[in-house]
Amino acid sequence: MRFTVEDIDTSEVARRKALYGPLTEVVRELIDATIRTEVDDDTIREVHAQVRAATDRLRARQSDGPFGVRFTNDGDGMAWGNAVIGLRNAIAPPLTIARDPDGTHRSQFVLGAAYEGPPGLVHGGICALVLDQILGMTALAGDKPSFTGTLTLRFRRSTPLGPLRAQARVDRVEGVKTFVVGSLSDADGVTVEAEGVFILPAWARE
Amino acid sequence: MRFTVEDIDTSEVARRKALYGPLTEVVRELIDATIRTEVDDDTIREVHAQVRAATDRLRARQSDGPFGVRFTNDGDGMAWGNAVIGLRNAIAPPLTIARDPDGTHRSQFVLGAAYEGPPGLVHGGICALVLDQILGMTALAGDKPSFTGTLTLRFRRSTPLGPLRAQARVDRVEGVKTFVVGSLSDADGVTVEAEGVFILPAWARE
Repeated sequence: MRFTVEDIDTSEVARRKALYGPLTEVVRELIDATIRTEVDDDTIREVHAQVRAATDRLRARQSDGPFGVRFTNDGDGMAWGNAVIGLRNAIAPPLTIARDPDGTHRSQFVLGAAYEGPPGLVHGGICALVLDQILGMTALAGDKPSFTGTLTLRFRRSTPLGPLRAQARVDRVEGVKTFVVGSLSDADGVTVEAEGVFILPAWARE
Repeated sequence: MRFTVEDIDTSEVARRKALYGPLTEVVRELIDATIRTEVDDDTIREVHAQVRAATDRLRARQSDGPFGVRFTNDGDGMAWGNAVIGLRNAIAPPLTIARDPDGTHRSQFVLGAAYEGPPGLVHGGICALVLDQILGMTALAGDKPSFTGTLTLRFRRSTPLGPLRAQARVDRVEGVKTFVVGSLSDADGVTVEAEGVFILPAWARE
């Protein structure tokens, strides 16, 4: 596993965000429309051919593998392929995670049809996906990477699709282990509680 | 929350699978290509416009909300919007989960660039997502629904992107609670262990 450094400045990062962000956003819309459409069969087949052609154009030149995590010379991280926060990953809602002065991390986001498990409800595993990301980012001490050791989720009640909030804070640190607690909430309060133990990888220890 | 019954027969289900399955599959490819493409800026903008047009065509007639879980008169389930197994959900890898005679559930699948967390590795929360689904399906007694009560994941080592396997089995049943254990593996063995407690919802109890 490796992190890549790209020799680009802040304005180039902004330019790429403006280029790739809107493309990813419309692919997110397409995912939603593919689930919900009720148009006739011929239209489905024609759209299939259009999406096939668009995909082939993008594949004309592409990286051999996944996006990875890239940094600029200034140390700005570009986790653009990330399944939860990735600017270029249409699977990601994406979450924008902010840090309070006291270290608490928070995010507000909306989950639509693509994140469904039981009818009208967020898939339990999607709750886990979102919480793993925000707990993991909270566990980061400075800019050190961390890996999930254990993650425990308590589903207190169903989480409805729609506007949601997540938050997390460090409970305690013991050596290379950071214990983080967090939760997922809808307008009526907490739906899922999470506790994670995050571990500093051996290669990042001093 | 409700399940929907559609008055369609097996051949109509097959017809819909043949219509929607390939569309969803090419949208999955588009997600991957959006992450990995290195084509020039003008092509990105043109593809953006093409995907916008394709999405608008699908949205010309669509359901008001998420897909839900629908059943045929024969009792066949169509969880086509599901985030892990959904035939019409491009976020889903999708997993096909088979049941052994002894009740063990298994799945083999491939996770590509769209499921990345750390560089080259499966996002920890995606491991949780997959395991929640297979453990939940294993917890089903007969065709009764079940909800995740708690889910505990132990990440033994990193999970590489690529071909993977998941499995789960019921450990024990205590009243309305079913305890299920499972794991995620790559070619070298287990990467993540999971234990889940699944609960029969009150409305489904006799």
